[in-house]
Amino acid sequence: MWPFGEGEDFLENQWYVAAWSSEVTSDQPFERWICGQPVVFYRDPEGKAIALHGRCPHRNFPLGKARVRGNVLECGYHGFQFGPDGNCVRIPSQDTIPDVCRAPAYVLVEKWEWLWIWVGDPTRANPDWIPDHNEIRLTEPGWFAVPATTNHLNGRAQLLHENLTDISHLSYLHPGTIGTDSVAATQVEITKHDGFLRGLRMISNEKLTGFFKDALGTEGPLDREVLIDFYPPNLHVAREKFIEPGGETIAQYRVCHAVTPATTTSTNYLVAWTRTFARDSQEITDTVNSVFAAIIDEDVNAVEAVENMISGQQQPLEVLVAADTHSMRARRIMKKLFADQSASAVDRAPRQ
Amino acid sequence: MWPFGEGEDFLENQWYVAAWSSEVTSDQPFERWICGQPVVFYRDPEGKAIALHGRCPHRNFPLGKARVRGNVLECGYHGFQFGPDGNCVRIPSQDTIPDVCRAPAYVLVEKWEWLWIWVGDPTRANPDWIPDHNEIRLTEPGWFAVPATTNHLNGRAQLLHENLTDISHLSYLHPGTIGTDSVAATQVEITKHDGFLRGLRMISNEKLTGFFKDALGTEGPLDREVLIDFYPPNLHVAREKFIEPGGETIAQYRVCHAVTPATTTSTNYLVAWTRTFARDSQEITDTVNSVFAAIIDEDVNAVEAVENMISGQQQPLEVLVAADTHSMRARRIMKKLFADQSASAVDRAPRQ
Amino acid sequence: MWPFGEGEDFLENQWYVAAWSSEVTSDQPFERWICGQPVVFYRDPEGKAIALHGRCPHRNFPLGKARVRGNVLECGYHGFQFGPDGNCVRIPSQDTIPDVCRAPAYVLVEKWEWLWIWVGDPTRANPDWIPDHNEIRLTEPGWFAVPATTNHLNGRAQLLHENLTDISHLSYLHPGTIGTDSVAATQVEITKHDGFLRGLRMISNEKLTGFFKDALGTEGPLDREVLIDFYPPNLHVAREKFIEPGGETIAQYRVCHAVTPATTTSTNYLVAWTRTFARDSQEITDTVNSVFAAIIDEDVNAVEAVENMISGQQQPLEVLVAADTHSMRARRIMKKLFADQSASAVDRAPRQ
Repeated sequence: MWPFGEGEDFLENQWYVAAWSSEVTSDQPFERWICGQPVVFYRDPEGKAIALHGRCPHRNFPLGKARVRGNVLECGYHGFQFGPDGNCVRIPSQDTIPDVCRAPAYVLVEKWEWLWIWVGDPTRANPDWIPDHNEIRLTEPGWFAVPATTNHLNGRAQLLHENLTDISHLSYLHPGTIGTDSVAATQVEITKHDGFLRGLRMISNEKLTGFFKDALGTEGPLDREVLIDFYPPNLHVAREKFIEPGGETIAQYRVCHAVTPATTTSTNYLVAWTRTFARDSQEITDTVNSVFAAIIDEDVNAVEAVENMISGQQQPLEVLVAADTHSMRARRIMKKLFADQSASAVDRAPRQ
Repeated sequence: MWPFGEGEDFLENQWYVAAWSSEVTSDQPFERWICGQPVVFYRDPEGKAIALHGRCPHRNFPLGKARVRGNVLECGYHGFQFGPDGNCVRIPSQDTIPDVCRAPAYVLVEKWEWLWIWVGDPTRANPDWIPDHNEIRLTEPGWFAVPATTNHLNGRAQLLHENLTDISHLSYLHPGTIGTDSVAATQVEITKHDGFLRGLRMISNEKLTGFFKDALGTEGPLDREVLIDFYPPNLHVAREKFIEPGGETIAQYRVCHAVTPATTTSTNYLVAWTRTFARDSQEITDTVNSVFAAIIDEDVNAVEAVENMISGQQQPLEVLVAADTHSMRARRIMKKLFADQSASAVDRAPRQ
Repeated sequence: MWPFGEGEDFLENQWYVAAWSSEVTSDQPFERWICGQPVVFYRDPEGKAIALHGRCPHRNFPLGKARVRGNVLECGYHGFQFGPDGNCVRIPSQDTIPDVCRAPAYVLVEKWEWLWIWVGDPTRANPDWIPDHNEIRLTEPGWFAVPATTNHLNGRAQLLHENLTDISHLSYLHPGTIGTDSVAATQVEITKHDGFLRGLRMISNEKLTGFFKDALGTEGPLDREVLIDFYPPNLHVAREKFIEPGGETIAQYRVCHAVTPATTTSTNYLVAWTRTFARDSQEITDTVNSVFAAIIDEDVNAVEAVENMISGQQQPLEVLVAADTHSMRARRIMKKLFADQSASAVDRAPRQ
């Protein structure tokens, strides 16, 4: 699907943020679509999170409407039970259980408040490929990280990736909060790092207004270092660093944007943020969360408006400019990943 | 359409429950889609129910928005009138009436509170093929029958047929009312009868709880004979008989489930029930109707959830087990009926 | 699309009523889909109305969510600015502006309270082809014209054209207001004029009831001259003239119905009316507007009901009768226009 090729809808052999830890309990299952698949989550009595294919193999009932019974999930229609490995362990009407009667388990890794899922070939799931949670400051000492927002948006994931890798939109989509003319006017410098692609903007000597002025308690002027790191294909980590004329950093925060495809034209969007300042202040947490909620709503609305405009078009027109450099570099990485996936599928074909 | 072949959507030369008697009046037309066709119902001044194709042949206006004028139906757009045989009897702007200007009439038979319709070739409509209403206890002396629920559900009819022929779901979908573990655990015995396919479960010595305990005023233990008879392709008659250890039946009731396809993926579902006990008690009628309404809602939600899961899939996976025996026998009968219909269509082709 | 050929969806080289003057301001853009295209309208500081293609060429954001900045429109996503000619005049991140970066301007003509748009080849847009607003009495001295209703209906435009060219529906769709049996029963006389096709009904010696009796303050009997002129492909002008037995006209009014395709299956419907009587009476304006609103709702509902009935059908059945003469003549004109458009597209093909 545009901007990728036909049938290039999901990168399956990748890690995605699937859910917040708090969304998954041992009381009742939690359903979320990921990469075109219904996934059902629950916890066993020891609290271990489990993810199974969310469709009962018996008669296609959604396991999102199942019941949690200890460490098994019991289908809400005819009572088939599935264990943490996805194998069926009980069929009420018979004792033998056919091998095909499974709700395949997904590999799941819980880190910080996030459940990371691998929807592809489980033998290839290497937890080391999950972005380092210290590096992205969710678990780094001296930082305080909190969940911010959870959205399901009606637009293809790539539109959200390109929203995040072209923050020249801040000035126009978020003028009431974090947008200033300087962001769109400043050239972005792209650099490739181990595991992520960085877009950096250095803004000098800017007078603060609105949200930033209120949050930092000064109107500056300050230098701002604005960067956004893309960890393909799922995560963007934005950072704002505010620097005094003398060179001292007075505050910084990071925002981690997890972009997880739900279906070909809808996306799960989970946002966390982490800060070095006022770490004990519930008031700061609440205030910024509510500002973020408003900002993310603007992004969701923008992506949905674009999806609506291009819906049904095979190859929409687009004019690419300097501000798109980061987006286009990121898109090229995604294209490469899709090409690799297609190639490896072709490789495998004769063996099947 | 799955689980049948491509183009095998509706069995047309069959009787279907179309409406409740009370839904069809001489005041205004009543529209319901049946087997992919819009059907409009009304009564003539003598009270005879009439069913016509629900689309004005002039300009495709729905006759569901027509007016009843004595024994004719007057289109609400340009005033064309159609008689009980479907022939146009008046065109306001001209005196001659083209033969093609018809809203073909359907064969309709009113029995008990039900209007049975034949949507296929009217020359083949034999009222004797309608299930005997004494046999199903709607009109049998000693029984008292009432309408229970009317639903239009967004799911293909076959999913509802298979809900009804696998009542092992009672234990899991309706645990708060009629479900007990015993139903799912008891083997079903299938027998073929004249006009219907019976699934029978004998449950011994069960302690009653919930709805049954309240309704019968005892917690037993009692033996239960639970059967469901499928009259293809439209009707399921469920029966519960409660038997004392000594062998005496203390109560029984039947529930008649009419499953009438609306479109390929939606279904009209009309449910009646009939009983031998407390026949004069409006309170029992009201109480049980409200319990049934809750139960039928659970079934409707389950079927819609499955439809949603398989939507767009050509051939969904399913794993069939002992509890599906009745469903699979019933499905085979439906497949045979579709095959007969296709064969007879091929037969007819050269003659057209 | 039926009743025209495949791909014959929109006549592009034609004038259409796009909007009311009052809908387009210099405060914020106004979006309306016309002939399958998103169009965004605004006014420059001098009040001149401007229409641009409503999709930003950069990243497909709807310009309906842009901001008006003097005489330019600034995209609400990344701040690209477009001038009244559709050329991009600012890209925040770079100084050079690619030629392809345009939101093409549409030719727009403001007459009376209507903005007329030409969505096809701008070099062929001749304002003289817009129906004469004196002739249709919107600007004629001695007449007083007001906007009546604005609707977006879910039905193809041709269904509304054929609603308007077969006013035998008045008697059946609008019996509570303007419908009388006489209209449907009276033969229509069709005559071709310069720029329009007229359908005329002469009704003699009719006793007035309901709306007409109230509005004119008499129950007659009067003669009525009922005509409707179709200016292809966009406008219908209906006229009622009430004539005393002696031959004197006591009142007349016209209703101008603009039928502008939005998408293939939805239509913008803007209605104005103009009168010779009680021109200063706000009460008459308000009363008649509210009657018209109810009548137009009935038409909208009828067209949507028909669209719903024929949706998905390639070639719905229709039986054409005397009352359809005007509709069929009008349909033939539309078919000829589509054929001409296809022929000229074929002509042009070798030159491209």
